[in-house]
Amino acid sequence: MAETHRPDPDRISALPVPEEADLDSDLRKYFDICREKLGLVPNVLRAYAFRPDRLRRFIDTYNEIMLADGPLTKLEREMIAVAVSARNRCYYCLVAHGQAVRRLSGDPELGEMLALNDRMAPLDARQRAMLDYARKLTDDPETADAGDRERLRAAGFDEAGIWDIAETAAFFNYTNRMAHAVEMMPNREYHAMDRAPAGAAAKGEAAAGGAPADGVDDGD
Amino acid sequence: MAETHRPDPDRISALPVPEEADLDSDLRKYFDICREKLGLVPNVLRAYAFRPDRLRRFIDTYNEIMLADGPLTKLEREMIAVAVSARNRCYYCLVAHGQAVRRLSGDPELGEMLALNDRMAPLDARQRAMLDYARKLTDDPETADAGDRERLRAAGFDEAGIWDIAETAAFFNYTNRMAHAVEMMPNREYHAMDRAPAGAAAKGEAAAGGAPADGVDDGD
Amino acid sequence: MAETHRPDPDRISALPVPEEADLDSDLRKYFDICREKLGLVPNVLRAYAFRPDRLRRFIDTYNEIMLADGPLTKLEREMIAVAVSARNRCYYCLVAHGQAVRRLSGDPELGEMLALNDRMAPLDARQRAMLDYARKLTDDPETADAGDRERLRAAGFDEAGIWDIAETAAFFNYTNRMAHAVEMMPNREYHAMDRAPAGAAAKGEAAAGGAPADGVDDGD
Amino acid sequence: MAETHRPDPDRISALPVPEEADLDSDLRKYFDICREKLGLVPNVLRAYAFRPDRLRRFIDTYNEIMLADGPLTKLEREMIAVAVSARNRCYYCLVAHGQAVRRLSGDPELGEMLALNDRMAPLDARQRAMLDYARKLTDDPETADAGDRERLRAAGFDEAGIWDIAETAAFFNYTNRMAHAVEMMPNREYHAMDRAPAGAAAKGEAAAGGAPADGVDDGD
Amino acid sequence: MAETHRPDPDRISALPVPEEADLDSDLRKYFDICREKLGLVPNVLRAYAFRPDRLRRFIDTYNEIMLADGPLTKLEREMIAVAVSARNRCYYCLVAHGQAVRRLSGDPELGEMLALNDRMAPLDARQRAMLDYARKLTDDPETADAGDRERLRAAGFDEAGIWDIAETAAFFNYTNRMAHAVEMMPNREYHAMDRAPAGAAAKGEAAAGGAPADGVDDGD
Amino acid sequence: MAETHRPDPDRISALPVPEEADLDSDLRKYFDICREKLGLVPNVLRAYAFRPDRLRRFIDTYNEIMLADGPLTKLEREMIAVAVSARNRCYYCLVAHGQAVRRLSGDPELGEMLALNDRMAPLDARQRAMLDYARKLTDDPETADAGDRERLRAAGFDEAGIWDIAETAAFFNYTNRMAHAVEMMPNREYHAMDRAPAGAAAKGEAAAGGAPADGVDDGD
Repeated sequence: MAETHRPDPDRISALPVPEEADLDSDLRKYFDICREKLGLVPNVLRAYAFRPDRLRRFIDTYNEIMLADGPLTKLEREMIAVAVSARNRCYYCLVAHGQAVRRLSGDPELGEMLALNDRMAPLDARQRAMLDYARKLTDDPETADAGDRERLRAAGFDEAGIWDIAETAAFFNYTNRMAHAVEMMPNREYHAMDRAPAGAAAKGEAAAGGAPADGVDDGD
Repeated sequence: MAETHRPDPDRISALPVPEEADLDSDLRKYFDICREKLGLVPNVLRAYAFRPDRLRRFIDTYNEIMLADGPLTKLEREMIAVAVSARNRCYYCLVAHGQAVRRLSGDPELGEMLALNDRMAPLDARQRAMLDYARKLTDDPETADAGDRERLRAAGFDEAGIWDIAETAAFFNYTNRMAHAVEMMPNREYHAMDRAPAGAAAKGEAAAGGAPADGVDDGD
Repeated sequence: MAETHRPDPDRISALPVPEEADLDSDLRKYFDICREKLGLVPNVLRAYAFRPDRLRRFIDTYNEIMLADGPLTKLEREMIAVAVSARNRCYYCLVAHGQAVRRLSGDPELGEMLALNDRMAPLDARQRAMLDYARKLTDDPETADAGDRERLRAAGFDEAGIWDIAETAAFFNYTNRMAHAVEMMPNREYHAMDRAPAGAAAKGEAAAGGAPADGVDDGD
Repeated sequence: MAETHRPDPDRISALPVPEEADLDSDLRKYFDICREKLGLVPNVLRAYAFRPDRLRRFIDTYNEIMLADGPLTKLEREMIAVAVSARNRCYYCLVAHGQAVRRLSGDPELGEMLALNDRMAPLDARQRAMLDYARKLTDDPETADAGDRERLRAAGFDEAGIWDIAETAAFFNYTNRMAHAVEMMPNREYHAMDRAPAGAAAKGEAAAGGAPADGVDDGD
Repeated sequence: MAETHRPDPDRISALPVPEEADLDSDLRKYFDICREKLGLVPNVLRAYAFRPDRLRRFIDTYNEIMLADGPLTKLEREMIAVAVSARNRCYYCLVAHGQAVRRLSGDPELGEMLALNDRMAPLDARQRAMLDYARKLTDDPETADAGDRERLRAAGFDEAGIWDIAETAAFFNYTNRMAHAVEMMPNREYHAMDRAPAGAAAKGEAAAGGAPADGVDDGD
Repeated sequence: MAETHRPDPDRISALPVPEEADLDSDLRKYFDICREKLGLVPNVLRAYAFRPDRLRRFIDTYNEIMLADGPLTKLEREMIAVAVSARNRCYYCLVAHGQAVRRLSGDPELGEMLALNDRMAPLDARQRAMLDYARKLTDDPETADAGDRERLRAAGFDEAGIWDIAETAAFFNYTNRMAHAVEMMPNREYHAMDRAPAGAAAKGEAAAGGAPADGVDDGD
């Protein structure tokens, strides 16, 4: 099978992408829910559909890490997603989760800051510690140590919070690599979404509409 | 909560590890199956049990990637696990999956080679291409490109094989980071297992006993 | 002089920023022209105004490299600016010149691609060679060699074009470091500008209005 | 246009170098002043003359940064030039500015130390802080932060001094890349100049003769 | 001379390996002593025998550094050997000296920890400082400074101890590179040796038998 | 024992340096020979004298690698010494062996090129291949492979030549680390030696006088 050497914004994945009509009914139904709740089917799901059982596992794990109740807010998880994806320069995840940060925070500048250089974001001590750890675990994981965990505790995280920062960061080190491996392209709709300056709309997680970028929050 | 700064071979995780008796029955049952099939409960499961729903997702994904039918042999998946973990210097995964390579291959030298420097392993072109790609996707994922995929095709992999090499490598970039984050310690039993030189026992995947290191093969 | 340790989107520079009214008349006049032609005074100029003679040199060099007639289009120069700034993770330049790429190309996706991972941009051979060279000269300048220059010639650049690719890339290695050194913050207006999807407006350099991000094109 | 792949000490630049006689009169006059004050025309000027307007900007900026009145001594600026060029392994700048350090300091060992490994130079706290910052801004600019600026203040620099350290370091990250891009060769005369051991001649900036390596100090 | 591109566990060196019978009598005698004391002739000696005078120097230096009386125990020297070889991913040295650590410590887990990730070893402050310094001197030697030497003194080392840590680490940076250069293969016997879990045998340097991996301790 | 944190050009080593008069007679005699043949006692010998048996081994190995008959010329060995030391930024070795290259080649520019950036040296294919390999073996030894050895053969080296390039490069990775560890300072005399431009004196290895920098050539 030949493939072009140039990335193509209209090609979701460099590996085969099945027609939606050919998918099993549980996956077709999940895509319908995405369209209803998110307004689109995230391309990562279409790309993973090449290996349907992997897609089912991905959905379960993604929703557990990003959407289940836990010590981190949904915005914090998306912030980690973007900060990790910036270290790995993962185009798909930066576009999709950058949009999620813009939407959940109501602050389009924050999304840009995290995608381009998280050190420029005016974070409080808790979120700064969180992202510093995510960056270290991404760039130089063998150096993570007890001192790091103590810094997170000092910033207010409990043991479950430490686990979740680590697992969210670790998980995006997995998805970033999948996106790079298949040159995954994000849905074009993300680019223009939630660009209105802060103040132009109600802020934050209470804002109307929308589950995070790649998942559907059953509990909504 | 104070913790010592020195790793401790008797401490499974730097974060809390629940008593097995306190786990939900589905997890206790899974641990029983592990003991029966593997002779031990891999410590990664005990560490993950701190966050039980994460453990459930980990088991599902692990078994899907490492044990389900697919284009890569179980040994090849374990070879990727070890080669990736070597790049990240993940002690837990090198010990646990190094043992799996020794057992599945019947070749203790191969396990050492992959754990210490996979370039020294006398692999055929297919497995060399597979591990070169896993190393690149670990160390420098943003450079993965069409040329890499073509090299894998030239080495005999089909599209699903390319996906699975990538996903196996990507997945261990996730688990390696979790192991580093909590200073996960492997079960001591792994160290002495399957050290008998090649030739001293029947070789390969047909050899008696044993599912891979961290999972239970339902289909066994 | 004490300063806070946290970046502040309302602080243009970590070093003193003079009041516009206190500047010499030539600089005040230049700021007026910026407001008229760009709709804003780029913060880089306000930051540099701390050292007025440096600002004068910066304006001269910037306008020469980015706006004077030459073998590279203005869009190509801005593409280099963004690609180099992405390697150095320079927030200021990515925001300001990312907007310039969106405006000059009429393609907001292209701006995102270059800012987040230029390898994902569907460039033709000429622009691919141009950005590959800019990346190399940024990340590993000591390895630039005759082979690189020959690749640029093969992609259609003449000798002056090679010079200009190199100098544009080199120049942003200078400005990126100044922006990092003083934690330069871009004007907030950039974020929302030129986000309309391709097709929604007339494309390209012929589009109405606008000089590039930090300069004023006298020849307009 | 073909070019040899081997650097050639007799080739000033890998791109075309115009004949001096063909240059505009302002540039020819400047070259005359160089010969009079420096005893030679620095090759960087001949290389830049391929793009005459760039040469004019280069001369202006160079003289402003390296020679204008300011909080750093001329020797300190040359020390930064050499320390930055050492990180980037820029042959041209190390030879030309290494000579300037030897001349301005009257200490040939200092020039060697800065060119080979600035950490071996027995600097006072002020100059040590200055070069540590220049090295960080060269090697890892995204990590420059408020702590760095405070260390410079503690070492005695005022706000303008911090700007000037940063800009001098940033500027040589630009010129180093231009020199690498065109394989710029320094004038051979530099090698033997100012090699007399300390003590053999009057020391320091008061010593007779000479403006810095690539510029002409109008104020001399 | 053609050679295969694939490493071969049965090929001691990629460069010629002379027949033992063809060696000078002093070297043949030394090989005999190795067989008597170690049970094998370490392959490094057979590889070096291609250049007999180099082998003589190697034996002298090796025995001086690893076996002569001095401030470091023989186990500590082997620990440095393994920790340095792990940074350089030197297969030969990790196999040979990993076995030596297992034997001298009576603790097979310690050997694995040092070979795979020395940070996971539960070392006391003295040995932790020793290995931290060896790692730094291997990975980033230009940053070694007075602070490092003071940390070693604080951990209990005297001046000769500091020299010996440095020289042992430095020496394995030499031997690791020789092993990489000729793709040196360790004797297969090492793999299965000293794998019995701690407690199964008498521990430590007092344990019966054996000189270190590559040398013969005349003083035994 | 306290020590200053600042390098000191008058301090040969950060660890104790014995008085020459206190050394054993064999070492005193060797120092006398150095003075006679080289005009000085290289400081590396005085630094090593802190551990006299190490000094004896160092002298033996140094003289074997750098001065014994073999497939590489003495100049080529010194070129490798300088090129490796440049990668490691070893001040001592760059000063001492840079002088040796100047002396043996009669070409002071060559010494500077190798010390500052060996890629700028106009070498023939044989010496280019030699230094490319030395650089790779220094910077990234785990990637050395059969392809490298074939390139050396294609450039005219036989098997012993390949060994010697590798061992010379490896050896300076050892000595560079010792020099960094003790902040070894070179004899000041080196700086001014052999600076006369090419042509000013007879060139090359036939030139009068002088054994290489740190050793005494018995065969002279």
